[in-house]
Amino acid sequence: MSLVRRDSEVGREQAAGARKTYIQWLIDRRDGAPNFELRKFTLEPGGEIPAHLHPDIEHEQYVLRGEYTITLDGKPYKVGPGTAIFIPANTVHSYRNDGDEPAEFLCIIPRREKYGVVWVEEERGSR
Amino acid sequence: MSLVRRDSEVGREQAAGARKTYIQWLIDRRDGAPNFELRKFTLEPGGEIPAHLHPDIEHEQYVLRGEYTITLDGKPYKVGPGTAIFIPANTVHSYRNDGDEPAEFLCIIPRREKYGVVWVEEERGSR
Repeated sequence: MSLVRRDSEVGREQAAGARKTYIQWLIDRRDGAPNFELRKFTLEPGGEIPAHLHPDIEHEQYVLRGEYTITLDGKPYKVGPGTAIFIPANTVHSYRNDGDEPAEFLCIIPRREKYGVVWVEEERGSR
Repeated sequence: MSLVRRDSEVGREQAAGARKTYIQWLIDRRDGAPNFELRKFTLEPGGEIPAHLHPDIEHEQYVLRGEYTITLDGKPYKVGPGTAIFIPANTVHSYRNDGDEPAEFLCIIPRREKYGVVWVEEERGSR
């Protein structure tokens, strides 16, 4: 069944393991999505997702709003609207919004029964 | 290999079968994307993608900019920034930008060897 849905209609939850970070599931398995799921993240000012990896799952992301730092395998990138990011499985990644404005990005993941995550100690060099 | 890429760095091509419509492949199999591919479409003013369906492929979409009409199985929706759209396989869909501003949306598809499309006669009632 097709659907058309404003993101403002979708409830947001705190993202597990993160600070001042929220997730909205825009299109997912409950809608019948067979292969991948579309989520939107909001990093409030001061928001942070610590370093982690997913052994079996890649991410494709697109920045909608604001600016934040994403660190991929120890290398930081300052990103803003219009940036696409590919994070293969097993890539260590973390996020930090040091600015005064909320930042938003889309994150697409493959549909899986389990969504494995391994939290890791971020390398000192990336801080 | 992870990647961070501005969409403005990605070349755009005319979308096949469409008018005044362009596609950019932001993250795809050439980048190693294993399961799904992220594209951005631009519908210029007057841009149009005629009615069609994909027998084997769903779309998940997110509107970035502008306004346009998307018609799903004969029902038109006026959409704008922040709208998510799920188009299951075999859903007839078409697009038209009747406004004065370009419209942009993301479209994610599963990675497949072939990308089947069937162009169909749009129902008169939806015009």
